[in-house]
Amino acid sequence: MSKKILIIGGVAGGATAATRLRRLSEDDEIVIFEKGEYISFANCGLPYYVGNKITDRDNLLVQTIPGMKDRFNLDVRNFSEVTSIDPKNNQVTVFDSKNNREYQESFDDLIISTGAKVIVPNIPGLKYAKNVFTLRNMANMDDIMSYLDNHSVKTATVIGGGFVGLEMMENLQRRGLKTQLVEQSNQVMPNLDFEMAQQLHQEIEKNGVELYLNNGLKEVTADGQKLVLHNGTELSSDITILSIGVTPASKLAQDSGISLGIKNSIKVNQRFQTNFSNIYAIGDVIQTKNFIDNSDTNVPLASPANRQGRLVADVINDLDVDYGPVQATSIAKVFGPAAASTGMNERTLKEKNIPYRAIHIHTAAHATYYPDAQPLNLKLLFSDQGKILGAQAVGNQGADKRIDVISTAMKLNATAPQLAELELTYAPPFGVAKDPINVLGYVAQNVLDGEVKTADWSKVDQLVADKAFIVDVRDDDEYAAGHVENSHLIPLNQIRDRLSEFPKDQPIYTYCKVGLRGYTASRILKNNGYDVTNIDGGFTTYYIAKYEPRHNA
Amino acid sequence: MSKKILIIGGVAGGATAATRLRRLSEDDEIVIFEKGEYISFANCGLPYYVGNKITDRDNLLVQTIPGMKDRFNLDVRNFSEVTSIDPKNNQVTVFDSKNNREYQESFDDLIISTGAKVIVPNIPGLKYAKNVFTLRNMANMDDIMSYLDNHSVKTATVIGGGFVGLEMMENLQRRGLKTQLVEQSNQVMPNLDFEMAQQLHQEIEKNGVELYLNNGLKEVTADGQKLVLHNGTELSSDITILSIGVTPASKLAQDSGISLGIKNSIKVNQRFQTNFSNIYAIGDVIQTKNFIDNSDTNVPLASPANRQGRLVADVINDLDVDYGPVQATSIAKVFGPAAASTGMNERTLKEKNIPYRAIHIHTAAHATYYPDAQPLNLKLLFSDQGKILGAQAVGNQGADKRIDVISTAMKLNATAPQLAELELTYAPPFGVAKDPINVLGYVAQNVLDGEVKTADWSKVDQLVADKAFIVDVRDDDEYAAGHVENSHLIPLNQIRDRLSEFPKDQPIYTYCKVGLRGYTASRILKNNGYDVTNIDGGFTTYYIAKYEPRHNA
Repeated sequence: MSKKILIIGGVAGGATAATRLRRLSEDDEIVIFEKGEYISFANCGLPYYVGNKITDRDNLLVQTIPGMKDRFNLDVRNFSEVTSIDPKNNQVTVFDSKNNREYQESFDDLIISTGAKVIVPNIPGLKYAKNVFTLRNMANMDDIMSYLDNHSVKTATVIGGGFVGLEMMENLQRRGLKTQLVEQSNQVMPNLDFEMAQQLHQEIEKNGVELYLNNGLKEVTADGQKLVLHNGTELSSDITILSIGVTPASKLAQDSGISLGIKNSIKVNQRFQTNFSNIYAIGDVIQTKNFIDNSDTNVPLASPANRQGRLVADVINDLDVDYGPVQATSIAKVFGPAAASTGMNERTLKEKNIPYRAIHIHTAAHATYYPDAQPLNLKLLFSDQGKILGAQAVGNQGADKRIDVISTAMKLNATAPQLAELELTYAPPFGVAKDPINVLGYVAQNVLDGEVKTADWSKVDQLVADKAFIVDVRDDDEYAAGHVENSHLIPLNQIRDRLSEFPKDQPIYTYCKVGLRGYTASRILKNNGYDVTNIDGGFTTYYIAKYEPRHNA
Repeated sequence: MSKKILIIGGVAGGATAATRLRRLSEDDEIVIFEKGEYISFANCGLPYYVGNKITDRDNLLVQTIPGMKDRFNLDVRNFSEVTSIDPKNNQVTVFDSKNNREYQESFDDLIISTGAKVIVPNIPGLKYAKNVFTLRNMANMDDIMSYLDNHSVKTATVIGGGFVGLEMMENLQRRGLKTQLVEQSNQVMPNLDFEMAQQLHQEIEKNGVELYLNNGLKEVTADGQKLVLHNGTELSSDITILSIGVTPASKLAQDSGISLGIKNSIKVNQRFQTNFSNIYAIGDVIQTKNFIDNSDTNVPLASPANRQGRLVADVINDLDVDYGPVQATSIAKVFGPAAASTGMNERTLKEKNIPYRAIHIHTAAHATYYPDAQPLNLKLLFSDQGKILGAQAVGNQGADKRIDVISTAMKLNATAPQLAELELTYAPPFGVAKDPINVLGYVAQNVLDGEVKTADWSKVDQLVADKAFIVDVRDDDEYAAGHVENSHLIPLNQIRDRLSEFPKDQPIYTYCKVGLRGYTASRILKNNGYDVTNIDGGFTTYYIAKYEPRHNA
């Protein structure tokens, strides 16, 4: 029995659902309504076109409407906004903006794939500014490009340091504009923890961008040419990109009686059904489950949207589907380094009162004796039972690979110590015989087995204030170049000969550059009967965390 | 109670065992005997030093003897060859070649980490040649460098196309030598299947190396300046590197009554114990279990050796250890591309009569609209129940990452379709919203669900001979540039209008460039009642497999 299936939204999930529906059935009538001009464009490529990194606009159009029609026998209607859904009578009202007409279309099944929309805050002066843009679709991008081409633009400002904000920052800077980034919180990339984001702050400033942290946009003046920040700082800005975040585009659904969940996302079950069993929703607009605690969440990312597109088609064709929780694995390039993460970060774990252990390692992406080995910094979060709760990576090489592997291990319920067992590719240009992933596993095991006690970088200043006995086990020259205040220098190789210098009646804290020598030192001391704690991640984690951006309100 | 532990061999596993032993106990006496001058050198870096890619020889010395002594309080004795083991009396005989003296040393526990040695075949004329070398350790490398520096060397030959052979080939070519590679079988890199290795054959010839396949070394004449191959071909060679393989260095163990297993490797249990419970063995010299069928195997790779080094120390310190089977994940760079694999290949599965399905995908390592996306070719092998049996990747970007992820999924017993569920990092510079890994999962699921029937590239010529109805669903210009003999051109987008051209009374075979359009075509035809089979990997797999190297005996 053939069905008539309507899809609202023709990008990512919507387009994937349509092609999968056709592959599963030649007979069904499949209609896509897309409000804009284009379907299936490369959303994630838009910032790079602005930066002339991608030079052929056509390359952003992954599928064209005629192509989709011919290959998949789809009825694709662009400039067609669905303005209301009538779940009782199984029909939608469509506004065809090209022909300025409204009509009804009936359905057996309806898929809502309306995505997310950019949040535009209510800020004085904003609506009068002709030089303030958002970036979500081809039309936004064309508007930005047209403004850049037709105005004398020398300075650019990005408001918001999330994925798109950072990518826009890099690409505006690439165009040769004097670029400013304004972020209301104390860090960019909210999926990372503060000390990991600090590496990006350093990179951003190194690349000449003026970074304003702890400082939001308060007011726009001079027709958009002046931006006033919360602390009164005034910035000149020839063009401004608003990237403070997105929110589910769920108003249509809500107005039609479809139940919403967290953050105004559409509530669906594990078969993507809304409260009406023949009305489905997928992509950035829906509520999913968090992989770590099964709590409700909304994850606006391309990969899950694509997968949901396939699966909703399977559901409609009565195949077995049980969509699981989402890890929210993500990555962004920030000039040189990539910053990637999966699972929960430490901030969220704290907020949710989920107990965790955190470890940091600072390593190289491949064998250091092979040329061009780049630093790679990793953070792993896990429970007392070893369950992997999250991971973060920042580095110019191999950050994507390591987070992909950890994401896979998490998904398959590996414990943190099991990371040590993974057999990963090794040759000098690609990795290390003991891969950073394996090292994370070993460190986690050492922590869980009680072989080593660790203290977090964030505790160090308090330890100093408390006059704790802190030992720097690095070499003289490393100590001379910078060390924890009031720490004692006793290089690792001298510890056995200088045991008498360590107090037996108080805890000892060891640290080195990255944690490994400190760990070895802690083993020597522990085996000699001392109460010893190693400072996780060594001086490197601490030093990065203490970085002071120039403009920090 | 402190113990006296002797370790035979100070590279990779041996060195790791020693440091871990010390971390676990300050009291044990730990002695390393190393036959050569150096411990813990970067074995895998040696070819790159020959090619001047690594320029500082000291960088290859990961740990020095004084460094190891100071930091880990180890008794490290180089130039010290253990010549016999007396398991009854728990002592070894040591020959100190520096002082030309022999002595006994007793032990509580003994770790054999003698590694593997290069196989030198018994070939006429070989022993008189002063210009034929092997490469396994620093001394070998120094010999090669000294020969290159002191002789007029213009042509170089590598015998054997395994990991080291290929790396030496690349590095000799990098030095500007006219380089030849001689391989007895029909392909290089035996861990890959033939059609995957063909990509490397192409690359090798593109880079100007003369590749001789199906042709081994028969005789060496003219003091090593002439090499005669099996088919009579004579090659001039100013320097020749023998790389036909390695074999466990187990003679010492065997002579001492220690039981050997497969390929003369030392038999150990899951706690690395030999037939003497206080004599352990680790690394390239031991027998392990194969991850796929639990059969006995010997895997001479650095990563497992390092892990075993840690674990044997844990065993000796009574920690819980149960070493599992080995996947043999590996990678080598061959000029541009990396070739990586994990698990079994198709050849081995056939030999072992293990039923399998094979799929190939040809994709890009990251979003094609972002600059410099490189082709990535993947092969996945899995059982009828979906168990992942092996994977292979060849490509200039991201081959390591994809094999690492699949290796992780395998280790954690994911099924092939579960690869579709993995949440992997995505931003245009790093990946694709539907990552190649996810695509493998989807294709595997389509195959297992019977949504698509596939035929292997190796069946195509027979299909042509049998006058099967083969349809090329690509576009006119693609067909014109090359196609399967006698195939019918019916572009995908025209299939629905040209259904009458397909026979109802015989099977139809579809193909496109890489398999995706062919799959869509097969769905259209199947849904219209035809018996249709898609050619896996499309014209690309078939075309690569049919590549003809210039010198193929």
